[in-house]
Amino acid sequence: MRLRHMLDHYKQRTESQLNQFLLHSSIDPVLQEAMRYGLFNGGKRVRPSLVYITNEILEGHVDAADRAACAIECIHSYSLVHDDLPAMDNDDLRRGKPTCHIAYDEATAILAGDALQCFAFELLSQETTHPGQQLAMIQVLARASGDKGMCAGQSFDLRNVNKPLTLAQLEEMHRCKTGALINASLELGYLASGYQDEKIRHALQLYGDAIGLAFQVKDDILDVEGDTATLGKPQGSDVDQNKPTYPALLGMDAAKAKLQSLHSQAHDALSPLHKKGEPLKAMADFICQRSH
Amino acid sequence: MRLRHMLDHYKQRTESQLNQFLLHSSIDPVLQEAMRYGLFNGGKRVRPSLVYITNEILEGHVDAADRAACAIECIHSYSLVHDDLPAMDNDDLRRGKPTCHIAYDEATAILAGDALQCFAFELLSQETTHPGQQLAMIQVLARASGDKGMCAGQSFDLRNVNKPLTLAQLEEMHRCKTGALINASLELGYLASGYQDEKIRHALQLYGDAIGLAFQVKDDILDVEGDTATLGKPQGSDVDQNKPTYPALLGMDAAKAKLQSLHSQAHDALSPLHKKGEPLKAMADFICQRSH
Repeated sequence: MRLRHMLDHYKQRTESQLNQFLLHSSIDPVLQEAMRYGLFNGGKRVRPSLVYITNEILEGHVDAADRAACAIECIHSYSLVHDDLPAMDNDDLRRGKPTCHIAYDEATAILAGDALQCFAFELLSQETTHPGQQLAMIQVLARASGDKGMCAGQSFDLRNVNKPLTLAQLEEMHRCKTGALINASLELGYLASGYQDEKIRHALQLYGDAIGLAFQVKDDILDVEGDTATLGKPQGSDVDQNKPTYPALLGMDAAKAKLQSLHSQAHDALSPLHKKGEPLKAMADFICQRSH
Repeated sequence: MRLRHMLDHYKQRTESQLNQFLLHSSIDPVLQEAMRYGLFNGGKRVRPSLVYITNEILEGHVDAADRAACAIECIHSYSLVHDDLPAMDNDDLRRGKPTCHIAYDEATAILAGDALQCFAFELLSQETTHPGQQLAMIQVLARASGDKGMCAGQSFDLRNVNKPLTLAQLEEMHRCKTGALINASLELGYLASGYQDEKIRHALQLYGDAIGLAFQVKDDILDVEGDTATLGKPQGSDVDQNKPTYPALLGMDAAKAKLQSLHSQAHDALSPLHKKGEPLKAMADFICQRSH
């Protein structure tokens, strides 16, 4: 109940902040429209909410987390715009709406993605009262999104369609592809708060490792068991594309057991935070129990 | 003669630094190969050389400019990899070699470009002894490359193929598309040097405005008058694609006069630098007089 309220609140805050940050003119307004289209796509804003919630439980001021929350959403959104391209996943729909290259065109979608990535770093570079902290945030975000994180995971994924993967390879792929940005969200929230305690930082990292993977395992399960209307994409699309998934590799029962185990790991990781960790525990419940 | 030596020296330094910075492992080594392919494409390294030269004439230590020089080349290289894609300029050759999506595949080229952009910001975030300076550099680079700079220029360009442009529109397009990164190179060199003098900073900006545009006017002239072997791309390709160019808009004589005038503006802008400005004057000569 309380988490639902926090998520709604922070979703709204993310969107109103993004709207403000995006207000500027350009030689090509269509590019900025396409960026906005990629950003305002009905997403749940899980990553910015993780930034805000982590900042909040560590008693940071909410303003300190705005740019980081928006920056990580820009990175996530650019990755979706590029992933949907014909040369990548070739998806025409995302959450029931035409993808960016369908609504505009491929060139505009490529450039809108490029500009969104850039905008993330611009946002983080604009707050200059705590330059050391901002620089640390930029480093966290850059490492998580590039060739040691998200891009590497996506590239490995595309290169291994129709190839058998070991469980270790699948996990490493998801750690890069999805996990890196989830972990970065927690790390950004930690940095924004100004709280300094390596034990807490480590706890957040273990928690992030667990929910990042849980997020993906749940996605794979939903792809088999969810329905198209709720998912906003065709049910079974991973299976149709012969993508490696947890259910395909482990069987559905073992995939569900894996999810359960990651769920427990996430809760256990938060013990150093005591009662402060409750919203993040609820977040783990939300991730593991969602229906889309 | 002295400039040729500086350019060779800084080209080598850029490449050896990039090589070092790129040494790390990843789940997808092919992605990193493709990044390297995009980076080591026989380019003249004009932008990093401008960073180094500006830093040098303002008596900065060369080490202080390494990351900025490499970062701007990563941004430039990613933009070339993406510009060459079928949905953009659809070029199979760049400097006589297969473009990245031909040597690898489209998805890998998109992701290699994405990861190169990210790597630029990662590089600038790693030096933490002068966080304020680094943050300023990140801001300069992000503003120059995104939706108020390079991406906007490229997007406007693609949206206006086969459409008549006014001279003002053409100039604004080039200011974004090429000029923004040239200006950023000078600004990064200035910031790296630690030199603080607004008059000098302003002089560098005026100089950058002039050579940025001159670079493009010269490119347009070469597209008509150069030969395919020297250019490394088909001569006349702009004309074939009905792209707006200075010769097309002004006529060749007026385009050459424009180049001459920008050349003079570049020299004049440097007067506050007195003798220190010589290498940048030589750079303006190089840009206006090159044969490819």
